[in-house]
Amino acid sequence: MGRAIIAGDGALPGLLAEAGPALMVRLEGQPGGTDGADVVARLERLGGLFAELRACGVTELCLAGAMRRTGFDRAVLDAETATLLPDLEAAMGQGDDALLRRIVAIFEAEGFAIRGAHDWRPDLVAPAGALHGEARPEGDAARARAVLAALGPHDVGQAAVAAKGQMLGIETLQGTDAMLDFVAATAPGSGGVLVKRAKPGQDLRVDMPAIGPETVARVAKAGLSGIELQAGHVLLLDPAAVRAACAAHHVTLWAVP
Amino acid sequence: MGRAIIAGDGALPGLLAEAGPALMVRLEGQPGGTDGADVVARLERLGGLFAELRACGVTELCLAGAMRRTGFDRAVLDAETATLLPDLEAAMGQGDDALLRRIVAIFEAEGFAIRGAHDWRPDLVAPAGALHGEARPEGDAARARAVLAALGPHDVGQAAVAAKGQMLGIETLQGTDAMLDFVAATAPGSGGVLVKRAKPGQDLRVDMPAIGPETVARVAKAGLSGIELQAGHVLLLDPAAVRAACAAHHVTLWAVP
Repeated sequence: MGRAIIAGDGALPGLLAEAGPALMVRLEGQPGGTDGADVVARLERLGGLFAELRACGVTELCLAGAMRRTGFDRAVLDAETATLLPDLEAAMGQGDDALLRRIVAIFEAEGFAIRGAHDWRPDLVAPAGALHGEARPEGDAARARAVLAALGPHDVGQAAVAAKGQMLGIETLQGTDAMLDFVAATAPGSGGVLVKRAKPGQDLRVDMPAIGPETVARVAKAGLSGIELQAGHVLLLDPAAVRAACAAHHVTLWAVP
Repeated sequence: MGRAIIAGDGALPGLLAEAGPALMVRLEGQPGGTDGADVVARLERLGGLFAELRACGVTELCLAGAMRRTGFDRAVLDAETATLLPDLEAAMGQGDDALLRRIVAIFEAEGFAIRGAHDWRPDLVAPAGALHGEARPEGDAARARAVLAALGPHDVGQAAVAAKGQMLGIETLQGTDAMLDFVAATAPGSGGVLVKRAKPGQDLRVDMPAIGPETVARVAKAGLSGIELQAGHVLLLDPAAVRAACAAHHVTLWAVP
């Protein structure tokens, strides 16, 4: 088989597996566990992983699902990873974009092609237009969009919340869920909007923004009335479940360029 | 007496009263209560307030302490406020800067001069340099400062938290305390830095950023190691108490231009 999925947490790895045969690789110490993996790897033993992927005939890879930053256990490093370590440790201290660019470069240097989830499952990508419901808080969406555009060059801000002309949340390292929980706790019942977009420099192959039905439930719990996505740049995991959650929670969903 | 303090919550109104005789005005329905006020006013009866201030010989005003956005009870409006109402309600839906600019313009149109807390108490303003301790996480401070600079034109972001090159918090409507509590809950023990600065368009006469000893305690609780202020643009309420809190909580404090 020519494909492998480097799988993190969440629904995406499973949805990608539905696209056709692929080797499922899971990393120890990452959320999502290692159950059902074809290969269990360690970040400290990349040399071994590269060899195993080649032995299985893998030529293209997709990094899919949430992963977290970890340290490196020096006691178990293989030679290849030891060479890469200074680079990797420096990248761990930078923004998500910089870290992922480095990881992509390492796999590409080994001859693997990196594919995005949207390459294997284009049907998961949010298309432009109304996705559920019609009412759109245009002013608040535009305000949040402008704030995200200003932050883009600083490698921060993949989502923001605005209500009645005010900013109520700007996503930081902790992610969209943490921001929504903050809004729920500190500004309940605002009726505002979540805007979620890719950052300008974001590599969609490895770090495409995504929402799932649990995101919609959190948006409703935060007292928001709508979600605006960047068309072509955000995954729905999966589209039917997300739309059903919008209906259940009375949340409007749409996408703009 | 020629001075009046339109007092909100916190220590600032009391610190201003120490600067010399001033009429203490408190608004009903605002945090801080109305105890000890010379005049208790209502936002719906500005005509009455203007008349009372003139009767007391007030020529200059300082708006001091935290206030919150409120609605207007139409049943008790006086004629002057009724005329201003469309304007005031439109301003309530905008950012802090726009709202305060409008309020300042209304008082100035009535012939009152608006003074800043720093005019009456220049000794409360953070000077450039080390204020407590020496260790400064320069990289993180620079990162947070760049993010705030990018947000300035969007009338959001008076404070931000960075640690190890990552953004952990960006202040929104809920304020610095809520952001620090968010960081404490979602990214404990980071050792990062709080940067607090005025927004580019911010009118320091009515909305000067401020920290007090309780801010320092919150910074420590959020697992941060330092606070960087904008010299000349942030009030210490009051300087001795803030420095004592820094010593008690092992927090470094400094100010840069």
